[in-house]
Amino acid sequence: MIKAQIVGATGYGGLGMVELLQRHPEIRIVSLLAKTDTGKPIGDLFPHLRGFCDQIVEEATPERVGEAADLVIFATPDRVGMSLAGKVLAAGAAVIDYSGDFRFPSAEQYGQYALLHPSTAGQPHAAPDLLPRSTYGVPEIFRRQIRESRLVGNPGCFAVAMTLGLAPAVKRGIVDPGSIIVDGKTGSSGAGKKPSTVHHFPERNESCAPYRLASHQHSVETAATLSQLAGETARLTFVPHLLSTTRGILCTCYASLRAGVSLGEVHDLYRDFYAGEPFVRIQPPGVYPGLKAVLASNLCDISLALDAAAGRLIVVSSIDNLLKGQAGNALQNINVMFGFPETMGLDRLPLYP
Amino acid sequence: MIKAQIVGATGYGGLGMVELLQRHPEIRIVSLLAKTDTGKPIGDLFPHLRGFCDQIVEEATPERVGEAADLVIFATPDRVGMSLAGKVLAAGAAVIDYSGDFRFPSAEQYGQYALLHPSTAGQPHAAPDLLPRSTYGVPEIFRRQIRESRLVGNPGCFAVAMTLGLAPAVKRGIVDPGSIIVDGKTGSSGAGKKPSTVHHFPERNESCAPYRLASHQHSVETAATLSQLAGETARLTFVPHLLSTTRGILCTCYASLRAGVSLGEVHDLYRDFYAGEPFVRIQPPGVYPGLKAVLASNLCDISLALDAAAGRLIVVSSIDNLLKGQAGNALQNINVMFGFPETMGLDRLPLYP
Amino acid sequence: MIKAQIVGATGYGGLGMVELLQRHPEIRIVSLLAKTDTGKPIGDLFPHLRGFCDQIVEEATPERVGEAADLVIFATPDRVGMSLAGKVLAAGAAVIDYSGDFRFPSAEQYGQYALLHPSTAGQPHAAPDLLPRSTYGVPEIFRRQIRESRLVGNPGCFAVAMTLGLAPAVKRGIVDPGSIIVDGKTGSSGAGKKPSTVHHFPERNESCAPYRLASHQHSVETAATLSQLAGETARLTFVPHLLSTTRGILCTCYASLRAGVSLGEVHDLYRDFYAGEPFVRIQPPGVYPGLKAVLASNLCDISLALDAAAGRLIVVSSIDNLLKGQAGNALQNINVMFGFPETMGLDRLPLYP
Amino acid sequence: MIKAQIVGATGYGGLGMVELLQRHPEIRIVSLLAKTDTGKPIGDLFPHLRGFCDQIVEEATPERVGEAADLVIFATPDRVGMSLAGKVLAAGAAVIDYSGDFRFPSAEQYGQYALLHPSTAGQPHAAPDLLPRSTYGVPEIFRRQIRESRLVGNPGCFAVAMTLGLAPAVKRGIVDPGSIIVDGKTGSSGAGKKPSTVHHFPERNESCAPYRLASHQHSVETAATLSQLAGETARLTFVPHLLSTTRGILCTCYASLRAGVSLGEVHDLYRDFYAGEPFVRIQPPGVYPGLKAVLASNLCDISLALDAAAGRLIVVSSIDNLLKGQAGNALQNINVMFGFPETMGLDRLPLYP
Repeated sequence: MIKAQIVGATGYGGLGMVELLQRHPEIRIVSLLAKTDTGKPIGDLFPHLRGFCDQIVEEATPERVGEAADLVIFATPDRVGMSLAGKVLAAGAAVIDYSGDFRFPSAEQYGQYALLHPSTAGQPHAAPDLLPRSTYGVPEIFRRQIRESRLVGNPGCFAVAMTLGLAPAVKRGIVDPGSIIVDGKTGSSGAGKKPSTVHHFPERNESCAPYRLASHQHSVETAATLSQLAGETARLTFVPHLLSTTRGILCTCYASLRAGVSLGEVHDLYRDFYAGEPFVRIQPPGVYPGLKAVLASNLCDISLALDAAAGRLIVVSSIDNLLKGQAGNALQNINVMFGFPETMGLDRLPLYP
Repeated sequence: MIKAQIVGATGYGGLGMVELLQRHPEIRIVSLLAKTDTGKPIGDLFPHLRGFCDQIVEEATPERVGEAADLVIFATPDRVGMSLAGKVLAAGAAVIDYSGDFRFPSAEQYGQYALLHPSTAGQPHAAPDLLPRSTYGVPEIFRRQIRESRLVGNPGCFAVAMTLGLAPAVKRGIVDPGSIIVDGKTGSSGAGKKPSTVHHFPERNESCAPYRLASHQHSVETAATLSQLAGETARLTFVPHLLSTTRGILCTCYASLRAGVSLGEVHDLYRDFYAGEPFVRIQPPGVYPGLKAVLASNLCDISLALDAAAGRLIVVSSIDNLLKGQAGNALQNINVMFGFPETMGLDRLPLYP
Repeated sequence: MIKAQIVGATGYGGLGMVELLQRHPEIRIVSLLAKTDTGKPIGDLFPHLRGFCDQIVEEATPERVGEAADLVIFATPDRVGMSLAGKVLAAGAAVIDYSGDFRFPSAEQYGQYALLHPSTAGQPHAAPDLLPRSTYGVPEIFRRQIRESRLVGNPGCFAVAMTLGLAPAVKRGIVDPGSIIVDGKTGSSGAGKKPSTVHHFPERNESCAPYRLASHQHSVETAATLSQLAGETARLTFVPHLLSTTRGILCTCYASLRAGVSLGEVHDLYRDFYAGEPFVRIQPPGVYPGLKAVLASNLCDISLALDAAAGRLIVVSSIDNLLKGQAGNALQNINVMFGFPETMGLDRLPLYP
Repeated sequence: MIKAQIVGATGYGGLGMVELLQRHPEIRIVSLLAKTDTGKPIGDLFPHLRGFCDQIVEEATPERVGEAADLVIFATPDRVGMSLAGKVLAAGAAVIDYSGDFRFPSAEQYGQYALLHPSTAGQPHAAPDLLPRSTYGVPEIFRRQIRESRLVGNPGCFAVAMTLGLAPAVKRGIVDPGSIIVDGKTGSSGAGKKPSTVHHFPERNESCAPYRLASHQHSVETAATLSQLAGETARLTFVPHLLSTTRGILCTCYASLRAGVSLGEVHDLYRDFYAGEPFVRIQPPGVYPGLKAVLASNLCDISLALDAAAGRLIVVSSIDNLLKGQAGNALQNINVMFGFPETMGLDRLPLYP
């Protein structure tokens, strides 16, 4: 039985992991750490958990981090994990981090990301020596490396959807990697638990608005992955939009298609690329189920279409931003790291309707 | 392994059972029957199910009903189960019915219900001889009878919330059973999958409206149960309201409290009444979590308050209308009928946020 | 042309008045005061106003309050207006206040309200000498007094809906004023513009929860009005609930009906009571349109039903909480105070769908 | 006083016109025609209208169409107006039609549109001789022609947003007209009043899904307009998405920008292009207010951004689909046709929040 510690247990991402681990037969939570709301059973803070998990939330002091754990999950904002992961790894535990801290193999690449992130403001990485040991946690692309890794950077929620949506086309060379446009849509929970004007119910409800146009940090990690797959520089224009939903990410991706490629060939290519993947579903031609078909699950749905006249491929990928986009994908990575069946604790059906 | 047949598999209630049974280790689905959309894998009809259940939906002819099944689940409108249950029982299978067909021990009581139901229009029961063998399926109240029964009438969604909310107070005699008012609120999915003007998105969204004021059929079965528990006639004024949510029922119940009873005593009484119940949670004084804390689970949350000046008890009970209010409660009944652990296939945490 | 000053111009209530006054032919805004976000055109702060109102928001210093104004609208939290209204009145201007500061004729009655209000914590009134000069601003009930008044306390949003819903029945003696239960439902905007966990989109969406059960301060002012109309003590159990909508209040009111009164008689009585009222609509028997039919208007819809078996009257009243429940009702009061046609600037149709 | 007849008065588009004309000082409704729900006051059918408009809805027989009217508004599905407009025009009345029937100057261009429209199925135009007399009703682009016209084809809702968003850039030659991608998002009301599975509340709520990818008929009329403005063939890949909101359209438009054009220059160009337009607002750099800032108004908000690295212009345009996207724009056209001030009856502020 693996002993897991969750740092940042009371944010949406940490709570997601708390919930998933209640049903994981090989991992038990050894401690829940947080900055605020400490000293109480987590079921007192979140009534939905009452009766399921009554562990006390403890203060996230540096000393406590890593204590008695085989695995530390940093469900924390950017720049927390980078200051503590070294110590945890040195003590022999594995680390997964939800933030951008370990998504890049070099301080230079991290720097591009940090420039765009609203809260990191271009600060340099605090533990650049750890970066070569880190792995980017998209299991469908980097499974082999994750299996060998003790330090995984869980990807950004939009990055999961974009990367899975575009990887086959880019890797197999059927689109121009310099022509990519991604129009992203996300539910409100992606911004976390902290109240703000943008996510105040009367402001968010019955609205839809773009934000950080062509300047969202998740485009950096996605471009890096796609460039690696393409063997040349991929460039993407990414515009995220806020929806009036709680959950879900849907990315509509546009790219110039190599002449002569048919929709049937694209479908075959995608099915082949994801053959055997437990969480990726290629929907049949003409089926675009949208967010509803993946909510509350770890699935990523991919639908495909062509604008033949304009010579463009259109890929629609959708996930639950808090599961395949965060805690679910993190648990999938953990399963890979520890050699558990990849669906363990994650084999949930979407919630319908 | 129990072989189950679902009649009406493509409505929300039938789908709920299809989904739950994918994760039940002792029951497997032997056939899915429906009136429309037959001849296709259910995953083609409902993209969220693709990859989980690909059984073909077959036509619900009378001949097929009960075939090769140990258990038939009628997830059908009123007056379907009553015409077919006799045959199924005679063939040795157990029956659970979602409609009002088997919620009453006599044709007379059924008649009161049928008068109020919009689609039965006061028609007499078609199989009155079966009624004495039927059991009303609120396991927390009638567990012993359900265990012995082969024919269970799954309660109305509002009835589950009202009955669980009021049973302890009525049974222990701390409220006047003639003074009950229940103000109910329900999500849109309670009305089923069939499109209608009332549930058309632009009409339902950003609205809240009462309907069938003091004339909803679920009040009949609830009054019958409460009268039985009270040992005298319980009378309730019930006004349901439609919310702009997909799921959830919240009932706010008001009743005159016996003089001298304190809130602490009420809490003790409720905790005692539901001690050991796996799906009922009595929230602590001052905690009113609302729908959010039970969605996607089989839980019923109960919160308690007093209006001391007016001498009234206020009970708030909330459920997921499609789980504890329908498919989840039905599976709980099935588990009781077949001697499985009551939480088997149902031990899900609520979805948050 | 009346010169109006809005204090607290950047809250939802103040903005509502800013918007309404853009289309009022007899009143012009002379200044907009606020505590924060000062020094900028209001259209920079609220993009929807760009091009309609570009007045600068100025700091709400005590010196500025009342300056160059014939009318001061305190769209401010409790206890702001009471400290400044005296000075404004002394300078000859009229005052309307959105908070509870001037809703009661005596410091004693105010005290009961203040005990329940979460932010006043039972503090005594700071200007008790002004209270006898103040008028409670429900124009349909107190029009004559408002016409003579220079100091009006605009009622609480729930109080408007409850009072209009119950006044005819209570005044004409067809219900027992000691038997009233009101189950209230409100959109999220009633809590104002300040972000909070309760109104954070992921928490509020797809939810419904009660709050301040039998202890909401609006019940105090409503009970006072109803007692005055009844000529005896009215008592009400009031439980408000939060909806996942932006706007709207719907109150479902229950009371014991005098024996022998028919639904037709109740309808006649209500129609008669509100004959000639421009903003109250008595919907015909069997029509319960809910929030949708009043949103974006200053209307109050009232629907009536009986639970004949239980001897209860059920009244459903609905308003837009930010118009008839706040800024719209305030402007209606202002029109009465200044002798303008009561619908001036308010003659808007509901927004459908 | 102009006498107007509304054909199709009980759909969302017809109702929108009914509502707007209640506040138009120069036009009065002479008759309301519809196919169903006839014989009753419109306020009986739509409770929000009670007290505002109580005209009887009459059967839309061909004989009644045009009767006693100076202006006939066809708020009807495709292919209704084309069969009746000739007769109305011959009788001397003016015509505006909401459908695609009169959006094209030739039967050939109509044919391209009809091929994509789900309900016209490529049928030829029934009155091709009228097409040369018709005008496409985007007043900001074709005001001069509309002023001279007696037959106006009101544009598609998405077409309004796309055309206004892209016209300045295309007309002034700063983008490549062959490179345009438009990712559209729409509220549910755009699909009309008729219930359907796609717009059933439980299906639509908490979802987002694309539909008719690269095959929506509004792209045909937009491409035609943009080609005309560009003086060369414009081509656009258009993917509409359904939101879980009632109202609103937001189009995010991407196009390759001519080298060396700065964001400041783009802003200047757009401000200049729309100088004096009463309903188009160019939001300042960095302000992307989204749907909320235009709902319930006839405004079109336009925000601008660059992806400098990729050499792309990003234009975000948003409207209320039922006002500037339908009835509001139609009334604006009518005002132009009849020489009334263009904002008459339309000078409404957005509803916030």
